[in-house]
Amino acid sequence: MTSFALARAIAAGEISAREATLASITRIDSTDDAINAFTSTSYPRALQEADAVDARRARGEVLPPLAGVPYAVKDLFDVAGEVTRAGSKVNRNNPPAAQDAFLVSQMQSAGAVLVGSLNMDEYAYGFTTENTHYGPTHNPHDLTRTAGGSSGGCGAAVAARQVGIALGSDTNGSIRVPSSFCGIWGLKPTFGRLSRRGSYPFVQSIDHLGPFADSVESLALAYDVLQGPDPLDPGSHALQVQPVGSLHQGVQGLRIGLLGGYFHEFATAPAREAVQTAAQMLGAMDAVEWPDAALGRAAAFIISASEGGSQHLEDLRTQADDFEPLSVDRFIAGALIPAAWYLRAQRFRRIYRDKVNALFQHWDVLLAPATPVAAPVLGSEWLDINGTQMPTRPSIGLLTQPVSFAGCPVVAAPVWPSGTGGLPIGVQIIAAPWREDLALRAAFALQAAGIAHLKTVEL
Amino acid sequence: MTSFALARAIAAGEISAREATLASITRIDSTDDAINAFTSTSYPRALQEADAVDARRARGEVLPPLAGVPYAVKDLFDVAGEVTRAGSKVNRNNPPAAQDAFLVSQMQSAGAVLVGSLNMDEYAYGFTTENTHYGPTHNPHDLTRTAGGSSGGCGAAVAARQVGIALGSDTNGSIRVPSSFCGIWGLKPTFGRLSRRGSYPFVQSIDHLGPFADSVESLALAYDVLQGPDPLDPGSHALQVQPVGSLHQGVQGLRIGLLGGYFHEFATAPAREAVQTAAQMLGAMDAVEWPDAALGRAAAFIISASEGGSQHLEDLRTQADDFEPLSVDRFIAGALIPAAWYLRAQRFRRIYRDKVNALFQHWDVLLAPATPVAAPVLGSEWLDINGTQMPTRPSIGLLTQPVSFAGCPVVAAPVWPSGTGGLPIGVQIIAAPWREDLALRAAFALQAAGIAHLKTVEL
Repeated sequence: MTSFALARAIAAGEISAREATLASITRIDSTDDAINAFTSTSYPRALQEADAVDARRARGEVLPPLAGVPYAVKDLFDVAGEVTRAGSKVNRNNPPAAQDAFLVSQMQSAGAVLVGSLNMDEYAYGFTTENTHYGPTHNPHDLTRTAGGSSGGCGAAVAARQVGIALGSDTNGSIRVPSSFCGIWGLKPTFGRLSRRGSYPFVQSIDHLGPFADSVESLALAYDVLQGPDPLDPGSHALQVQPVGSLHQGVQGLRIGLLGGYFHEFATAPAREAVQTAAQMLGAMDAVEWPDAALGRAAAFIISASEGGSQHLEDLRTQADDFEPLSVDRFIAGALIPAAWYLRAQRFRRIYRDKVNALFQHWDVLLAPATPVAAPVLGSEWLDINGTQMPTRPSIGLLTQPVSFAGCPVVAAPVWPSGTGGLPIGVQIIAAPWREDLALRAAFALQAAGIAHLKTVEL
Repeated sequence: MTSFALARAIAAGEISAREATLASITRIDSTDDAINAFTSTSYPRALQEADAVDARRARGEVLPPLAGVPYAVKDLFDVAGEVTRAGSKVNRNNPPAAQDAFLVSQMQSAGAVLVGSLNMDEYAYGFTTENTHYGPTHNPHDLTRTAGGSSGGCGAAVAARQVGIALGSDTNGSIRVPSSFCGIWGLKPTFGRLSRRGSYPFVQSIDHLGPFADSVESLALAYDVLQGPDPLDPGSHALQVQPVGSLHQGVQGLRIGLLGGYFHEFATAPAREAVQTAAQMLGAMDAVEWPDAALGRAAAFIISASEGGSQHLEDLRTQADDFEPLSVDRFIAGALIPAAWYLRAQRFRRIYRDKVNALFQHWDVLLAPATPVAAPVLGSEWLDINGTQMPTRPSIGLLTQPVSFAGCPVVAAPVWPSGTGGLPIGVQIIAAPWREDLALRAAFALQAAGIAHLKTVEL
């Protein structure tokens, strides 16, 4: 049952919130030794929240939209009373969070039930959730493979049906990559759409937060619940809630294009097959040229490394040995980048954003693969991308990074091409800034056509 | 006659715009060999604009608020058909500007008459207008002394009565310092208040544009004319015009404080006398502590040097010898600053701004000297500030830099303390962001009391 259907069943009294929560807890306990999606659980809070929902229902109250639905959050969201570790060892000594992150509060107001916190690359700097402190997260579709990152715990938890909804973050692909590798739905909203208050930052000028889900309906519902202006968050630019509206409007009249050039060149055959299947169903024929994709990616790298390095400068100086060995060198190098590089990357970004936005005068939705490949084996150092050997960890973000750098909203849709041994590859459904509704409508059409969907895993 | 009075006289037909313009031209031609305020004149355009005003009056039209009033602009404002040199040799080979800067258009719409462009420190990086390419600008009150910078041409031109209004820029003090040294009125508006489109940037994240004038009425009138939202300027944050309103409301009811601590420590006896005279008239008694002033200044230095260096990186690499010898080393050093320093300075700025803004819960207006000293002799390398030897060129901004870094609007008021050999020292009248009106009301009260005003110079 999807979270969307579960919310209806709880509202109708067919199942209690406590039963739904216990089912989630049972599933986590029986599968997470193999998956390692969770870094901590919050079962007492979950049962309290569930019981509160059941009590409201017993009193005949109208329940909010996600009442009784279990979910979990990447371990960079503040949860009152818990230490926000952000995948690190260093943060373990921080004081517990005094209050929930803004988006956790939004979920609580909507009646959702928080069951725990999810594994990630340290400080969100990675695409594989190979975390030396907390162990790697394993892909539910093949335990030898990565779940993607940096929100790998989110991807694995939804794919393993531990929860139907998870909240993660995406700076250069950290929602879309785990969605792609784990075969689930993910939404990276427009830059500035959702408040980041109470989340641990990686790259303040590019970080986005957003939901993962088991279906397009669940994704849209979670997204609507998360929206809301937050005057206390200087990073959120949304002045009003824009509900998604009906997903059933279809895609007739939408101008849908398929990204060519860079997005074709760096996609392997299965990734090309995935996006072409989606494009065919949606009637997208033209190969659209995204402007300056490689430059956009380079600028995103410079900004990410600089801001990431700056963020952790004191700790890098005094306790570099406590950092993740797989990313500490990148953090240190980032702290040494000249300001002139950073400033020119930011200046380029404004030009780039204008060029990308101009595309949407001609297109409503653009399609591209989310990753060049299906999930690599944990520990892989090299990817073969159409005959070129490329370093695995940075290259996973080849196709996501240019898109997030422009700030556009993207839904990642789970497609199942041939030639991957049964593994999924995500398709990015990209819309103009502030038009999440269009990306979600196209996603719903793909789901309705049976092209994008979750698959059951045996664990 | 002030520009404000001149506008009324022209509107009343007591004097023609052509006569007013010719008077300005005559004054420039007879005094600028000694002053060197102008780097170029635009007399044909001026006479054309003046004749257009006279023709409108002859047709019985109602004239706009600055009709026929001569003004000049710092040589970093685009003037259609002219090369914007920004005080540099490097820019001489640039193509001429295709159109006027936004603020020049605003002045033209208001009927003002552009007579020329004014000298400045190269690329606005300095406080003395010691420009090796175009020669130094001399202080009209003592030709051996600096007019201040970087808008030194503006300060000198108004003090020498060549024009009654000038437009300049202020990143770390470049409007307030020349106002202080030349004994004229200046307004650095709230950060983001006026469009910077068509002006040559120095530090995009701190640059402000604003007017200089011969009286508070002229200053307020020019400021009102310059206001206006500009959707094409990403740097302007003002959504609406907020007219100053009546200057005659007085200061009764305003909570006016005098800045102590840092702003006392780094002021010499004449600067203290200037601000105390103003404070006494305005009934400001308390010594208010401005938070983290020295840190604010340090962060402003880092951001200025980084953005300045980045702005000119290509030219520094290929033609460093063409730069101003007095600032080229600072530009090169700025281009080498690590991004981590820059980012932490920007992060500090947000905290700093919040702390400064909190002051204005208790105060409407705060007073401080604009400069630690009166105008130094051109070429001075060292200032004596209460027994401490400090390097002249950077130390001139000691008292302005912390204020602009917070973004507050400031009027610089020309006061004439003892112990300076007849030279003026400005007083900063600081208000909360977006409350230029309050600073201007307090300025008008000082003018009405005879405490702050221009003095006639013999040239």
